[in-house]
Amino acid sequence: MPRAIVAVEDVNAWEREADVVVVGLGCAGAAAVLEATAAGAEVVALERASGGGGTSANSGGVIYLGGGTAVQRACGFEDSPEEMFKYLMAASGPAPDEAKIRVFSEDSVAHYEWFVRQGVPFKAVFYPHYSGEPPTDDGLVYSGSENAYPFDEIARPAPRGHVPQIPGQAGGLLMQKLLAAVEASGAEIVTDAHCQQLVVDADGAVVGVVVRVDGEMRTIRARGGVVLCAGGFVNNKEMLERHAPELLQCKYRVGTTFDDGSGIRLGMAAGGEAIHMGYGSISLPIVPPKKLQKGILVNGHGVRFINEDAYFGRVGEHAVYRQDGVAYLILDAETFDRPDVEREIAGVGESIAELETELNLPSGSLQSTLELYNRHAEQGNDPLFHKSADWLVPLSHPPYGALDCTTANSLYAVFTLGGLRTSIDGEVLTPDGDAVKGLYAAGRTTSGIAAPGYASGVSIGDGTFFGRRAGAGAARRARA
Amino acid sequence: MPRAIVAVEDVNAWEREADVVVVGLGCAGAAAVLEATAAGAEVVALERASGGGGTSANSGGVIYLGGGTAVQRACGFEDSPEEMFKYLMAASGPAPDEAKIRVFSEDSVAHYEWFVRQGVPFKAVFYPHYSGEPPTDDGLVYSGSENAYPFDEIARPAPRGHVPQIPGQAGGLLMQKLLAAVEASGAEIVTDAHCQQLVVDADGAVVGVVVRVDGEMRTIRARGGVVLCAGGFVNNKEMLERHAPELLQCKYRVGTTFDDGSGIRLGMAAGGEAIHMGYGSISLPIVPPKKLQKGILVNGHGVRFINEDAYFGRVGEHAVYRQDGVAYLILDAETFDRPDVEREIAGVGESIAELETELNLPSGSLQSTLELYNRHAEQGNDPLFHKSADWLVPLSHPPYGALDCTTANSLYAVFTLGGLRTSIDGEVLTPDGDAVKGLYAAGRTTSGIAAPGYASGVSIGDGTFFGRRAGAGAARRARA
Repeated sequence: MPRAIVAVEDVNAWEREADVVVVGLGCAGAAAVLEATAAGAEVVALERASGGGGTSANSGGVIYLGGGTAVQRACGFEDSPEEMFKYLMAASGPAPDEAKIRVFSEDSVAHYEWFVRQGVPFKAVFYPHYSGEPPTDDGLVYSGSENAYPFDEIARPAPRGHVPQIPGQAGGLLMQKLLAAVEASGAEIVTDAHCQQLVVDADGAVVGVVVRVDGEMRTIRARGGVVLCAGGFVNNKEMLERHAPELLQCKYRVGTTFDDGSGIRLGMAAGGEAIHMGYGSISLPIVPPKKLQKGILVNGHGVRFINEDAYFGRVGEHAVYRQDGVAYLILDAETFDRPDVEREIAGVGESIAELETELNLPSGSLQSTLELYNRHAEQGNDPLFHKSADWLVPLSHPPYGALDCTTANSLYAVFTLGGLRTSIDGEVLTPDGDAVKGLYAAGRTTSGIAAPGYASGVSIGDGTFFGRRAGAGAARRARA
Repeated sequence: MPRAIVAVEDVNAWEREADVVVVGLGCAGAAAVLEATAAGAEVVALERASGGGGTSANSGGVIYLGGGTAVQRACGFEDSPEEMFKYLMAASGPAPDEAKIRVFSEDSVAHYEWFVRQGVPFKAVFYPHYSGEPPTDDGLVYSGSENAYPFDEIARPAPRGHVPQIPGQAGGLLMQKLLAAVEASGAEIVTDAHCQQLVVDADGAVVGVVVRVDGEMRTIRARGGVVLCAGGFVNNKEMLERHAPELLQCKYRVGTTFDDGSGIRLGMAAGGEAIHMGYGSISLPIVPPKKLQKGILVNGHGVRFINEDAYFGRVGEHAVYRQDGVAYLILDAETFDRPDVEREIAGVGESIAELETELNLPSGSLQSTLELYNRHAEQGNDPLFHKSADWLVPLSHPPYGALDCTTANSLYAVFTLGGLRTSIDGEVLTPDGDAVKGLYAAGRTTSGIAAPGYASGVSIGDGTFFGRRAGAGAARRARA
C-alpha cells in the first residue's frame, strides 16, 4: 500500500469531482450518504466489497435509541433523554464523551423517526425473555445493563435496544433498507473500490482521494469533504498487538475482512488523532436461557467477580480485562440448562469439593465462595455483587457442574471501539483539538460513545447518528 | 501553540544548523546526545526547563540492567541475558515488544558499562530489605516481581535494579553525572527552549525544528535527524482523558510540568503512530516495612486479588485496572507496623466481623476471605495467589485493622507508558510500519519496553538504552 497521504500537487488530474466522498457503506457510511444527499450534495460512495452492508449487515441489527421513542411508549416504558444520558454517562467507561452522549440522547427520538422514514420497520412489542437481539421479530429489548446493579440505581431502567422487524439477526434487513434509500438518493455508488490515499493541500486540508478500482488508481476531488466510515481494526492482527492486545485471546472477531483499520490509518496520516484505541466490545453470552444467570461466575482463583445478570458485554470485559480470560459458570442440578451458545463442560462433581478439584481451582476456594453465596442467597440477597433477587437461589443440589467460559475454550465475540477522535459534527480532530479541514469520520473508524460498559446497539446507534452529522457537515462545507 | 508541523518551504531561513537536534534533556535525551557526539556529530540539545534533568532527576534513579553485570556478580547473583529476556517477556504486558526486549537484554551488560564510563558510581552491595529504591547507598535491589509468583517459576530470579551510589533518591546523582558528560561532549545546550514544530520536506522527512527561545521563534536545521525525548503525558489532563483515563483517579503524578505529551504530539503530527497509549505505571507502595506483606489486600467486595509480595507496580496496576481503585490492607496486632508511606487507617475492630462492618464490606465477605486465608497460612501455603511462605501467617490476633489503599484516599504514583512507536534503532514509525525519515525518539515519548507489569528502572533503562541507539542513528544519517 502506498503512503496514506499524497500532496495535491502530485495529483495530475481529477478524474471525478463531487461535493462529498464517503468511504465505506456500512451503517455509518449509508447514514452519511443519506444526509449529504438530502442536503443537496453530489455524493460519491466508495465500498471495498462488492456491495454495501459491511459489518452492520452481519450484526444483530440492534440500534440503541431512547428518550421516549414511539416503540418505547407503545410498549409501556417511560424514558427521557435525561435518563438515557445518565445511563450512558455511567456505563461508557472511565472517560465518557459527555458532549456526544448529550446530543445523542437529546436527539434520539428524532433519530428513531429518521430510521422509520428510511423504511426500517419496528414492531412495537417488547421481548422480555433475555437481553440482546431476540429470536422473534419483536422490536424492543434490554441491550445493556440498564436494569442491573449498579446502573438500576443510577438511572431509571428502560429498554433501548430497537430491533428491525424480522426474526433473528436483523442487521441484514436494516442495511437492506438503508442501502435501498442510498440507491434512491442519487449518490453514485462505486463498489470494489479501495480508498488508498487522502489528497491534502498545502494547508493540510483534505481535498480528495485516490481510490483503487479494478486495479486502476483513480482520483476523486471532494469539494466539501471526505467522510471515513471504513469500520474498525479487529481483523488487523498487528494493529491489535499495538493497540488492543487483550482482544487477541478472543476467538470470534466481529467484522468483515475489511475491518483492518484502513480508515483509521488514513485519518491518522492526515493528522487525525486515534483515541481510546485499547477499548473493545467483548461479549461473553452466558445466557440464553436466562435461567443460567442463577449460576455463579468464578475466576481462576475460585472467586466471584461480577453480578451474573450484568449484560454480556460487561461480563466479557470483566472476564478478559480483569480475570485474564479465565471464568467458569458454576451450576447445580436445579439451575443447569443447555446454553444456546454451545459451551463445553469444564467439570462435574458430586460435591463442590469434587468440582473444585476437577477445575484445578485452589483448595477450598470454590467451597468458600459457594458457602458465602448460598448463605446470602437463602436470604434473597447478594451483598457482594447485587444480582437481582430473581436469580438468587442457593446452589445446593448435586451434581454440580461448570461451563467453560475461558477465552481459550469458548466463544467471546469482540470488536474494536477505538478510532479517530471526532467532534460532535463528525470532524476529525488533531491531537491539539483542531479539525482536519475537509475530513470527517463516523462509526467504528472513530472513537464514538461506545466504551467499556458496552451495550448492544451503541455501535449502530452512534455510527448512524454521527454518520448523519458527518455527511451533513461535509455537505455544508461544499456549499460554503 | 501553532500547528505541530510546518513545510520546509514556509521556513524563510535556517538560523542554525546541526547534524542532530535532541529535544529534551532527561535521561533519554542525554543518552542520545552522548552517543551522537561520540559518533562525531554536531549536536544541539533543546530543553524546555532552565536546566536538564527532567523527570529522571526527580526519580529514584533505579536502572533496570542485568544479564550478569559486574554489580550482580560481585553481589553473588547469577544472571544471563536469556533469563532477563524471559522475565521481561513474561512481565511486560499482553503484547511485549520481543525485538526490543531481545536487544535490551543481550546488550545490558555493555549498557551497564556505559553508565560506569559516564561516571555513574555503583556500590556493589545488595540491599535485601525490600524492593525498590533503597534508603542506603547500596547499588542493587529487586525492582520488579522477579522473585514473586508466577515470575519466579518462569525465569531464574535475579535483582536487576541498579542504583547510583547515594542514599535515598538517586535520580539527581544519575542526571548530574549524565549532564556533566553532556556538557563535556561539545554539544550545544539551549535551555528554556520549547520545540513547537517539526519542519518537514515534500517527502515527509523531518529536516529541522522551530523552537521558541526567550519568546522568539527560531529555526534549526537537522541534517541527520531530530530525536524526541520530551517525556510522557501524565501532566496533560486532556490527553489522559483521551488515552489513559484510569490514571486520572491516582493522586501522585510522577513527572514535571513538561510531561504534557508535546513530544508525542510532535511525532504524531509528522506521521508517527502512538501506541499502547492506555498503559501506565501505577505504583501502590504497601511496603516498606516489608513486614506489611504479611497482611492481605482485599478489594471492595472483601475479596483478595493478588499476592501481596508482588512488586508495588504490579499491585497498583491490579488495584486500579481490575478493582476500580478500591483496596484495603488487612492486618492484625502481630503484623501491623507503621508504613513508610503514610496511609490512613480505614477501620479497626476487635473481630474481623467488626472490621468488615467498619469498612462497609459486604456482610460475611471479609470473614470468609480471612477464614480461607488463615486455614491455608497455618499450613504455610497460599494456593490462591502463591505468596511466598516468608509472609504467610494467620491473621488471628485482635485488634484487626485496615490501611486505606483506595485511590481516593491514598498515594498511587503514576506515569504514562504509551507513546510513539519506534524501531529498535529509535526511528519513529508510521501506522504502516515505515520510518518517518529524520525522526527519532526515546524515553517516555515512546512506547518502549515498559508495559503493565512495570518494574522500577525499566524507564531509565529503556530510555537511555534506546536513546543511545536513536542518537547513533541520527548521527549515522547525518554522515550518509
